[in-house]
Amino acid sequence: MANSKYEYVKSFEQPDVLLPNTWIVVRIDGRGFHKFSNKYGFEKPNDRRAIDLMNAAAKAVMTELPDIVIAYGISDEYSFVFHKSCTLFDRRSSKLVTTIVSTFTAYYVHLWSQFFPGVPLSPPLPSFDGRAVQYPSVQNLRDYMSWRQVDCHINNLYNTTFWALIQIGGMDAKSAEKELAGSLSADKNEILFSRFKINYNNEPEIYKKGSVIFRDYELVEPGTAGEAIEDDGAKTTEQIKLSKTQEENDKKRRAKARITVQHLDVIKDEFWERRPWLLSNRPGKIPKEP
Amino acid sequence: MANSKYEYVKSFEQPDVLLPNTWIVVRIDGRGFHKFSNKYGFEKPNDRRAIDLMNAAAKAVMTELPDIVIAYGISDEYSFVFHKSCTLFDRRSSKLVTTIVSTFTAYYVHLWSQFFPGVPLSPPLPSFDGRAVQYPSVQNLRDYMSWRQVDCHINNLYNTTFWALIQIGGMDAKSAEKELAGSLSADKNEILFSRFKINYNNEPEIYKKGSVIFRDYELVEPGTAGEAIEDDGAKTTEQIKLSKTQEENDKKRRAKARITVQHLDVIKDEFWERRPWLLSNRPGKIPKEP
Amino acid sequence: MANSKYEYVKSFEQPDVLLPNTWIVVRIDGRGFHKFSNKYGFEKPNDRRAIDLMNAAAKAVMTELPDIVIAYGISDEYSFVFHKSCTLFDRRSSKLVTTIVSTFTAYYVHLWSQFFPGVPLSPPLPSFDGRAVQYPSVQNLRDYMSWRQVDCHINNLYNTTFWALIQIGGMDAKSAEKELAGSLSADKNEILFSRFKINYNNEPEIYKKGSVIFRDYELVEPGTAGEAIEDDGAKTTEQIKLSKTQEENDKKRRAKARITVQHLDVIKDEFWERRPWLLSNRPGKIPKEP
Amino acid sequence: MANSKYEYVKSFEQPDVLLPNTWIVVRIDGRGFHKFSNKYGFEKPNDRRAIDLMNAAAKAVMTELPDIVIAYGISDEYSFVFHKSCTLFDRRSSKLVTTIVSTFTAYYVHLWSQFFPGVPLSPPLPSFDGRAVQYPSVQNLRDYMSWRQVDCHINNLYNTTFWALIQIGGMDAKSAEKELAGSLSADKNEILFSRFKINYNNEPEIYKKGSVIFRDYELVEPGTAGEAIEDDGAKTTEQIKLSKTQEENDKKRRAKARITVQHLDVIKDEFWERRPWLLSNRPGKIPKEP
Repeated sequence: MANSKYEYVKSFEQPDVLLPNTWIVVRIDGRGFHKFSNKYGFEKPNDRRAIDLMNAAAKAVMTELPDIVIAYGISDEYSFVFHKSCTLFDRRSSKLVTTIVSTFTAYYVHLWSQFFPGVPLSPPLPSFDGRAVQYPSVQNLRDYMSWRQVDCHINNLYNTTFWALIQIGGMDAKSAEKELAGSLSADKNEILFSRFKINYNNEPEIYKKGSVIFRDYELVEPGTAGEAIEDDGAKTTEQIKLSKTQEENDKKRRAKARITVQHLDVIKDEFWERRPWLLSNRPGKIPKEP
Repeated sequence: MANSKYEYVKSFEQPDVLLPNTWIVVRIDGRGFHKFSNKYGFEKPNDRRAIDLMNAAAKAVMTELPDIVIAYGISDEYSFVFHKSCTLFDRRSSKLVTTIVSTFTAYYVHLWSQFFPGVPLSPPLPSFDGRAVQYPSVQNLRDYMSWRQVDCHINNLYNTTFWALIQIGGMDAKSAEKELAGSLSADKNEILFSRFKINYNNEPEIYKKGSVIFRDYELVEPGTAGEAIEDDGAKTTEQIKLSKTQEENDKKRRAKARITVQHLDVIKDEFWERRPWLLSNRPGKIPKEP
Repeated sequence: MANSKYEYVKSFEQPDVLLPNTWIVVRIDGRGFHKFSNKYGFEKPNDRRAIDLMNAAAKAVMTELPDIVIAYGISDEYSFVFHKSCTLFDRRSSKLVTTIVSTFTAYYVHLWSQFFPGVPLSPPLPSFDGRAVQYPSVQNLRDYMSWRQVDCHINNLYNTTFWALIQIGGMDAKSAEKELAGSLSADKNEILFSRFKINYNNEPEIYKKGSVIFRDYELVEPGTAGEAIEDDGAKTTEQIKLSKTQEENDKKRRAKARITVQHLDVIKDEFWERRPWLLSNRPGKIPKEP
Repeated sequence: MANSKYEYVKSFEQPDVLLPNTWIVVRIDGRGFHKFSNKYGFEKPNDRRAIDLMNAAAKAVMTELPDIVIAYGISDEYSFVFHKSCTLFDRRSSKLVTTIVSTFTAYYVHLWSQFFPGVPLSPPLPSFDGRAVQYPSVQNLRDYMSWRQVDCHINNLYNTTFWALIQIGGMDAKSAEKELAGSLSADKNEILFSRFKINYNNEPEIYKKGSVIFRDYELVEPGTAGEAIEDDGAKTTEQIKLSKTQEENDKKRRAKARITVQHLDVIKDEFWERRPWLLSNRPGKIPKEP
């Protein structure tokens, strides 16, 4: 029994290949996490268990997909970055996005009981949506990362003040919202300090900076790295052969690297200059065991 | 601290809205399920626990997303159909696909222990990728469904014979493959019957037909349904108002309907004629409790 | 000297194939025609030479591209419709749109001197932009055509009244604009009739209805045509062979048909019922010479 | 009479905005120019009138669209490059491509009689199709230009030899084709020289190099230009204001510049280093009149 009669329906599948030589960011977001966080009694403004679970799931995604060079997470969202030279799944957008969303969700549900012991999940289960965005230049990519980290700061300062007004100041949500309407950063810092003796600078880095995940190699002294050789141009057959061998070696070194979760400033140049492997996609030196 | 300086990166997000008035099929597939099924010792040619788990996850997806009118599953794949009039998430492709993939994955992992008791999941976890395809006409959509069901038949007949040769006939995989190379349906039926006394027609429907999931209303006598009123044209303000009230009523009736998993022929007209609500998107009569 | 070193740049070309089984409308618009019409002293509200030139260019486009089933033009815009079964240029959007835009422009410039004798063109030359839109159903397509024809009516009634106020009534443009702001159709009809003795109904059809271009076959009595056999489904190899022969015959008959420019109501059913070949894409009977 | 009832059809128009911060290349090609060149008796291997007409049309396109930074033409094709910072028509692909195709066609037809006096055009008229391609980096863009120029060389060497074999050597087309099958560049050079005393290096640059069109400013000594400031990142409100004033000044200077058609090597660095305005999009110094 041939299937040819109906197979024409395959011709309705449209290609969705992303442009070569662009950085691919896949950002995923918790669906209805406001309601979800209430259902499971997440602590406010930040629930450490929830953040740790997000980070654990993201780390698992990076382990399963070595093509991801860096990931950055805040609250219920995570951004995963594929290098501009990435050819995973022929750069098909749906395939890249759904694989990340599905893998992340699988670990989030699977690891839940580890981070929320004694709090069993029940339907509707947590889920995430996602999308891919392309960034042509390193500057665009870094500005994307900065955008998310500035957002982290703005939201966390607001939430910290909002919940201090409620939890310590005894306000209700509406009054707290009103109090903060139109306020500047300085105002919120002042409220925290003068009313509640909270110095925002002393808040935990994980909440102020978000979480950044990457493969860990030996840090490089800024200025000593040599120029990253931009490689998006024409290559001779010779060069293609060489780069294939190199790719194999790189793959092995990458597999050996430890994946680390940190809470650093990704806006400043220093972060990128000391970790040249993030933008070059060439693995660094594996640090010696202490 | 304003975020405007970096916010320009949002302008790199490109729209991915699907064409109005087309049927949307989201098909998801297990990633690396050959390896996965070996790891957990799935029975061959079909593992009932695995199929039941797929169906349970798909049923949960349909419960959480009432815009899905029908779903069809075989092996480690599932197709979910949104009505051509669907406006969920403004028909954004990424949003529709990732929501389905994520919700499906969440339930698959969450329900695993129920269907595989005593077989704990361990990394790498099961995951699914997915894509959306648009079909302009009912005929195209039905041909899509037929395509998947014919595929189910072809694969299941092959697998049933292949594994009979191995499990009962004592062949190794290579020899079985060779034996079946180029064989027609009739040949496989003959092998099953003459060598192993297996009448393929008596195999369980769930394996021969796959699984179809839909909301259950009272069946309609073919020919009595009246023409489905095609509704993809210009409407007066009056008509738009009326259709909003109707939509609300439809929503309530839909919520009351039971979602059922069956193993029917979806190629023949009868399936669609007796369930006019599938193509019209107008809920039918809720059957009386027995 | 091999070109392979640079040929990788071809991989940046992204596909833009339109969805199968949808009606394709390519609409083109004059660029900056307000200024252009002033430069060449077009008569207001309508310049017959300009409209005749548009129609001549559109007719030439239809002659060169037999895949176009119908075209509709008003003012400086023209819409060309490809049948949903069209496979010209593998339905690549850029190719379809640029071919139409370029062919139209070539004839517009080439035929200019015939319609505007003694008025030589000078830079900047007239040019047109264009885009493709897909419509899944006949209803959508007919609503598109109705939309353009209603627009034609609205604009022509407005312009006729506006220019009557100026040319006969002696108003300046600003006063005329003010006079018409917020006016209904009935008001404009009343102004035309009571002040200028103009009965809008007696205005030329070419301005009131726009121009519709199609291949001319014998008209069919409404109701006698038989149902058009919708053909967007699965086909056996046999059927494909048959339909290829038929296609060849259709092509020959289509080539013999006269292309006609008329000014008819395309909103009413009658237009479509009497010309079943427009929607079926099956050529009708060639009318006998009188 | 409101148009709202049918206006819903506008919602079927899908956006086609190109990614920000990428170089946009619009390449147009003559449709059926093999046949066309025979019809009008173009000289082989190159017809100077035809090439001059292509260049005149391309120059007119660049004059009407100052956003184009450079254009490159060979035979019946032309590539137009928009700077990566270009925001013309909000970067809508259809709009950019059709505007170029239409403007080019208009001038090609309009100027025909100037370059082919006494050879009137007749239907079917010359026409062009086109498409847009995005290149994320300068390297990709330069490789695109190199690809076209290498193609020019390959084709011209082949055609020069092919037509020498026929026109001087007295071969028929088939024999000439056979003679050249599998031949290397050196072989063709040898045939030209040994049989026909033609030194390929002495052939006219316009045929060997193609034509490159750009705005002409004072050439810069390589190495003295200073680094072009890459500008695709975050900007403060202050910077945006400044860059708007600058843009206005740039526009004026650009309008004053002469558009020049030359036949240079665009593969080597020198071409780009001496004309930094091409990649920076900042106009250079207007050369003094001699």
